[in-house]
Amino acid sequence: MRRPMRWWGWGDDGHASGLPGHVDDLLRDELGADPARRAPHVPLDAVRLEPSRLGGAASAAIAAAAPVRDDREARVLHAAGKGLPDLLRLRAGDATFAPDAVVEPASEDAVLAVLAACAEHRVAVVPFGGGTSVVGGVEPVRGDCEAVVALDLGGLAGLEVDGRSLLATAGAGLPLPELDARLAAHGLTLGHVPQSYEYATLGGCVATRSAGQASTGYGRIDELVRGVALAAPAGRLALPALPASAAGPDLRELVVGSEGALGVITAATVHVRPAPKVRRYEGFAFGSFAEGRDAFRRCVQARAVGDVMRLSDEDETRLTLALAGHGAPARALGAYLRARGLRTPCLVIAGWEGTERDVRRRRARTLSMLRRAGAVRLGTAPGNAWAKGRYSGPYLRDDLLERGVLVETLETAHTWSGIDALYAGVRGALQGHARLVGCHVSHLYETGASLYFTFLMPARAGAELEQWRAAKEAASEAIVAAGGTITHHHAVGRDHRRWLGAEAGELGLAALRAAKERLDPAGIMNPGKLLP
Amino acid sequence: MRRPMRWWGWGDDGHASGLPGHVDDLLRDELGADPARRAPHVPLDAVRLEPSRLGGAASAAIAAAAPVRDDREARVLHAAGKGLPDLLRLRAGDATFAPDAVVEPASEDAVLAVLAACAEHRVAVVPFGGGTSVVGGVEPVRGDCEAVVALDLGGLAGLEVDGRSLLATAGAGLPLPELDARLAAHGLTLGHVPQSYEYATLGGCVATRSAGQASTGYGRIDELVRGVALAAPAGRLALPALPASAAGPDLRELVVGSEGALGVITAATVHVRPAPKVRRYEGFAFGSFAEGRDAFRRCVQARAVGDVMRLSDEDETRLTLALAGHGAPARALGAYLRARGLRTPCLVIAGWEGTERDVRRRRARTLSMLRRAGAVRLGTAPGNAWAKGRYSGPYLRDDLLERGVLVETLETAHTWSGIDALYAGVRGALQGHARLVGCHVSHLYETGASLYFTFLMPARAGAELEQWRAAKEAASEAIVAAGGTITHHHAVGRDHRRWLGAEAGELGLAALRAAKERLDPAGIMNPGKLLP
Repeated sequence: MRRPMRWWGWGDDGHASGLPGHVDDLLRDELGADPARRAPHVPLDAVRLEPSRLGGAASAAIAAAAPVRDDREARVLHAAGKGLPDLLRLRAGDATFAPDAVVEPASEDAVLAVLAACAEHRVAVVPFGGGTSVVGGVEPVRGDCEAVVALDLGGLAGLEVDGRSLLATAGAGLPLPELDARLAAHGLTLGHVPQSYEYATLGGCVATRSAGQASTGYGRIDELVRGVALAAPAGRLALPALPASAAGPDLRELVVGSEGALGVITAATVHVRPAPKVRRYEGFAFGSFAEGRDAFRRCVQARAVGDVMRLSDEDETRLTLALAGHGAPARALGAYLRARGLRTPCLVIAGWEGTERDVRRRRARTLSMLRRAGAVRLGTAPGNAWAKGRYSGPYLRDDLLERGVLVETLETAHTWSGIDALYAGVRGALQGHARLVGCHVSHLYETGASLYFTFLMPARAGAELEQWRAAKEAASEAIVAAGGTITHHHAVGRDHRRWLGAEAGELGLAALRAAKERLDPAGIMNPGKLLP
Repeated sequence: MRRPMRWWGWGDDGHASGLPGHVDDLLRDELGADPARRAPHVPLDAVRLEPSRLGGAASAAIAAAAPVRDDREARVLHAAGKGLPDLLRLRAGDATFAPDAVVEPASEDAVLAVLAACAEHRVAVVPFGGGTSVVGGVEPVRGDCEAVVALDLGGLAGLEVDGRSLLATAGAGLPLPELDARLAAHGLTLGHVPQSYEYATLGGCVATRSAGQASTGYGRIDELVRGVALAAPAGRLALPALPASAAGPDLRELVVGSEGALGVITAATVHVRPAPKVRRYEGFAFGSFAEGRDAFRRCVQARAVGDVMRLSDEDETRLTLALAGHGAPARALGAYLRARGLRTPCLVIAGWEGTERDVRRRRARTLSMLRRAGAVRLGTAPGNAWAKGRYSGPYLRDDLLERGVLVETLETAHTWSGIDALYAGVRGALQGHARLVGCHVSHLYETGASLYFTFLMPARAGAELEQWRAAKEAASEAIVAAGGTITHHHAVGRDHRRWLGAEAGELGLAALRAAKERLDPAGIMNPGKLLP
């Protein structure tokens, strides 16, 4: 049984927290924050909840299909995802937006029966997987319904493996680590490792069109899904797992990324790979972000990339090195970089996974390209440090929040021709709001790349949500102005809806709405998400 | 200026026709056909046409936006694609189904204006690219409209290249050879080479979700499209060329494969590649189709494939060798295969394209896998023979038709676990109708492969369409029963509509219909295609 996440933040109580002492300097010097400040979250008992609005008849109809919970813990745990505004509100004790109840179906049939009951009683349904959304994707919005329930998909956790075809069909609620553990028994892996890996579910990834840290190699989830099943209020839509088809528009791509707005993704058939025997992660440095970007472009266009390819800009590299502390290894690294003439280095993490032979062969090709482009090799220490901390970002955010520092991330992507202006535009927009703005290239494509921004701002007590909103809005406007995608791997949810039209077009949105109205005629599915 | 295709068959009059003498034996021995028989097509003047139904007001309204032609040649040339039933009817002089007129817009704005005029006057619109559809995709069906026009997209032939991003934005009407010729000036290629390459247009490929002979390496057209523009009766839907996005369902995948039923694809941005310096095609043989299929599976799952990977079954190999004649090279090949113990050999064509170094490296990997799996190397002669004849299949079909032999092809795909039963089922179904049934694996995926069937039957004069229909229906039922896709690269058109529901589901069809109603409220776009 998976432990639920902390209601006020990331991770569960099995995880240690706390920042090393040298981070205090960073907070003071770079952010003007007071390292001694502590802004703890309120206790669970003090969290404000509204009385459940789920009527007796509706509750009874739903309960005939699946268990219904409306206790404080269940409601608070399903009140939000893990976006910065979610955490700000919850830590301050506000869960007035919590769902009226939490429903726990054990099968796809139960999901269909719950949807029928909810449509009849006008109850909005918010599909809930790992609850890791950072864009408000699981916010319980009633819309014009009488009540809203969270539909926890933890009960849909089956797995069937077709090793010959490298396919696995899994229930939507299966957490990624459990999926990989069960695939490992067949010598297989999904290779899909978002930062939320420890808690994300397969269904959540499919619904949000996620990318993982190794997606440059393994492919994004939309590239891995072969078949998918959607339980919609209008019925069941099951698309078979076929390697390819020319039979009309690809309806899988209508379901993947549908964010619960068309129905509930109940299962998916995904392309799996032999579990790697070797994982090798290494560090490199370039003299500038522009130089590194160009080298990355050459690598991917020559198909000479690792499965993991990350390139931090000057500011993110400086922040990474500062967080690594002032011990002997960090000092030695700094001295080495200076000796090699890199005053403002840009850190690269490259990683290869596979058989020993495959890793050797592919690594040699990447190294040859990187070397020719002027990269300085830093060995496995930075790679292993990255791998060790690959899931730690959200914990760090909680620790910083407690010290009154807001940290937020956002991501976009563009063609290689468009990425320079995108970087400059978004960075400039964020610098108008945040003290520290770092960026890295996180995923490579032959035609372009993604940019992942992290920014930090000292909280103005009581005005944190406004601070966040202003920065987010400025960045989103800059993204749209530069022609980038409003999200490369965090989905649309609540936070990006306003900008979806810039990408999908008004007629695209209209087509999507038409499909939604057909699949969800009563409009109960995840109101207020995806569609503006 | 591109020459139009022969109205009664494939290719233009610049192409020589005729079968070598030794094919007579094959026709007599294998098909029980009379080699002396000739069933020529009627002359163009004798082709039956209905008077145009396009009214004066409608014609004037359309002509305000684009030239309108209703001469005999234009109407007959746009009366059909190049499917077997199309050719049977046209050769016999029946073009009563021809469009009432042919419209030739010169820009996207003109297309939009034509659509507006057609919606107002209730004129059905059939987008027409190269006219190479083999599934009735361009058949002029009036539906419940007053008239039907073919919209010839030859005037939309612009090209913009973004070499840094490996992207090219081309007009829908650009023929593939012209696209490649213009890309070659930038050192680039699309690498999309269907058998219809000489006549197919980019827009036609995008609308039909086509695969090319080298798509195992370069990817199918749906894997190459990054952006796409659709002119629909309800307006313009332009989806930007982004390397990846998590912003909701991928609407590009609704447009790709929409077969003119949602609107007119006017332009597409496609991922292009450096033009290969080297193209190397080689032959190999396996002792059985099953053995070869398993070797192909291992190759692709180890990512050790060529760009071209074809494996013919025993019967197709026998037919290929027979068509090669009885000269010294063919006899020597036969003797060599027997000496290596291959009594019923299965021919492989593998091809690699790229830089010299890249081809050497990749070829070595494929060879090592094939050798270990027991393949016999046949050198470059079979590979070059295949490359030389790679576009000749449709010419051969015309020559055989003239001799009273029906030849048809169909294709499907399945997972590696499902492909054996799919092969047996479809082959068995076709053997109930055809004298000769051959099959090859034409495209490889890590999770499965495609099967491409060719079958020949001596024509029963006057009953050819029934013969075709019975065989097609039996094969389609077998495909659906085995869980394969009803089409891997020929699209749905008119011929596969009945079976689309087996793949997309009734609710999937309903969602698609909802999108169509929004984009094409008057229902003028390509009636009778795609949707059952």
